Amino acid sequence: MAPYYNELYGNPSSMYKLAKESEKAKEGAREKVAKLLGAKLEEIVFTGGGTESDNFAIKGVAFANKKKGNHIITSKIEHHAVLNTCKYLEKHGFEVSYIGVSTKGFVDLNELEDTINDKTILITVMHANNEVGTIQPIQEISKIAREHNIYFHTDAVQTVGKLSVDVNELGVDLLSLSAHKFYGPKGVGALYIKEGTKIDSLLHGGHHEKNRRAGTENVPGIVGLGKASGIAMDEREEGERLKILRDRLEKGIVEKIQDVIINGHPEKRLPGTLNLCVKGIKGESMILQLDYHGIATSSTSACMAGLEKPSHVLLAMGIPPEVAYGSLRFSLGRGNTEEDINKVLEVLPPIVRRLRAISPYKKIKG
Amino acid sequence: MAPYYNELYGNPSSMYKLAKESEKAKEGAREKVAKLLGAKLEEIVFTGGGTESDNFAIKGVAFANKKKGNHIITSKIEHHAVLNTCKYLEKHGFEVSYIGVSTKGFVDLNELEDTINDKTILITVMHANNEVGTIQPIQEISKIAREHNIYFHTDAVQTVGKLSVDVNELGVDLLSLSAHKFYGPKGVGALYIKEGTKIDSLLHGGHHEKNRRAGTENVPGIVGLGKASGIAMDEREEGERLKILRDRLEKGIVEKIQDVIINGHPEKRLPGTLNLCVKGIKGESMILQLDYHGIATSSTSACMAGLEKPSHVLLAMGIPPEVAYGSLRFSLGRGNTEEDINKVLEVLPPIVRRLRAISPYKKIKG
Repeated sequence: MAPYYNELYGNPSSMYKLAKESEKAKEGAREKVAKLLGAKLEEIVFTGGGTESDNFAIKGVAFANKKKGNHIITSKIEHHAVLNTCKYLEKHGFEVSYIGVSTKGFVDLNELEDTINDKTILITVMHANNEVGTIQPIQEISKIAREHNIYFHTDAVQTVGKLSVDVNELGVDLLSLSAHKFYGPKGVGALYIKEGTKIDSLLHGGHHEKNRRAGTENVPGIVGLGKASGIAMDEREEGERLKILRDRLEKGIVEKIQDVIINGHPEKRLPGTLNLCVKGIKGESMILQLDYHGIATSSTSACMAGLEKPSHVLLAMGIPPEVAYGSLRFSLGRGNTEEDINKVLEVLPPIVRRLRAISPYKKIKG
Repeated sequence: MAPYYNELYGNPSSMYKLAKESEKAKEGAREKVAKLLGAKLEEIVFTGGGTESDNFAIKGVAFANKKKGNHIITSKIEHHAVLNTCKYLEKHGFEVSYIGVSTKGFVDLNELEDTINDKTILITVMHANNEVGTIQPIQEISKIAREHNIYFHTDAVQTVGKLSVDVNELGVDLLSLSAHKFYGPKGVGALYIKEGTKIDSLLHGGHHEKNRRAGTENVPGIVGLGKASGIAMDEREEGERLKILRDRLEKGIVEKIQDVIINGHPEKRLPGTLNLCVKGIKGESMILQLDYHGIATSSTSACMAGLEKPSHVLLAMGIPPEVAYGSLRFSLGRGNTEEDINKVLEVLPPIVRRLRAISPYKKIKG
């Protein structure tokens, strides 16, 4: 990325030589992203990140197809970039159905199919959940969407670069991704838009991105997204390594700490994600203690952290609020080793012991 | 910016220590941007660039105030991020008046005031024009807006970091800026939103930027914007230097080349901008020839380059299309020296001679 911040700073839309270098770099990145997804070049539109991609996909399809209908289907466990976009559309004449999930976090396909009506224009269901990691049956949903001639968008921010994501295999019409979720830079993402999809722009202005997304292109960011896509293709085995580490961590915690619930599906889950509820204490308390030992964790989504609410995902999965408050999420990645797992297994049990000693849990358990 | 791409990659919304470093850097940048504009900290919202800021301001105020009215006033010479956003709103129940400009590019204040009606909720007029550099009478427009209790937005993408821009002196309610227009990175900008302004979000999702702009913050980009703001404050005299260079370039071209028209106001103009029309030849031809000599120029806005249309700005200023096609724009900046000016004055006249020799101009002039 650095050369595009320094000597190669041309605006790709300009006519001079320096501009052509930027244009070339941008299109090189598009090739890599398209290849990672199995998409055509012209089906990739660069954006400012996952949230913009989700807003673009959902509002864009909604407004462009409102003559056909005003009904949208999503799930209760989507990221807030999807949920709050849907809530916004409800204020602008659209009706949205929020489908429930099983205790493992799978969208209820029967409910989804039953909810479809003549006015349904869009289904938006995430590829994998950002909190618990459960991977949705995207191919089955896309089959249902196709049968009813409804557009299908998936927020794949959690899976692109981590799992094999092929837009044709998945059968989706629109797919959101974010660079910083697979070691690329913050502030850049993309939206896959299947050829022929009827969609309005979100950002209006110049004729960038073939008139689909206005704004001077973030060339260094786009170059970073391209590079991250290339590296992700080269490191397809990384997921296996993470899964082994994650499973060791999970097994160790369950063995060492009583009254722990593992959230999400044991197998159909992101390889690096471990989300659990420790009964009787708050997630935030554990996060702060772990941070003291240099271990960075989270509870609900970072995008909603700091709010005094239990996770909407865990609640939708049927976990009682008082248990959901005790959620703790580990996200393993490229930098994590066996040693890290050992450290957590050494540090976490005494933290839980100390916190439970001063919590209502003590009273319950005596 | 580099540390925030490398070791300090935390998500500012998270709870761990690394995240706090990101949060601190982001808020440090906000202080610098707020200081540059004379704004309060909470009046600055970071965005993905100038186009997003314009879309956010205009759509945000329009939809949030539509119960009060559906009429918007803008000018004919705005950037397409404003014009095309207004065109979009026309499709969604809003009425937009496009005010004309004088031959020097000033918005007609009488026409503006006459156009105001009971349903007018927003005036959006740019601070300085991106093509010809004419600086609009923002204080007078804000006085009119205030008298009629109408929100006033200005696209200050061309002026922030180049001229002294104080939101209170200008009297605006909303102001867009873009980092890459004053040596900051591409893909990041900000919107100033005066306290108490009623505005909807453009990007819905997490609770970033106090619920006004969702999406994981582009920390390195924001840090770059902050740094650029700091440097701009330290280099307030740079404008004077550019003005002297620009005026030398302008004088030299007028002396050496016949039938040249200088566009924009001689004094009330961005110090680094020189826009001229060379009669009888196309701007694009000159750009390509100058590029061969390592001189990067443009004709219309880069955001609209490549379209076979004369500049909407020049047409609005009353310049005939056949002359407007011959527009050439020099944008001087920090890196430019006297030598650069000498080179253009040496290289451009023979280019014009050669191009005119093969153009219809030859027939007219004999």
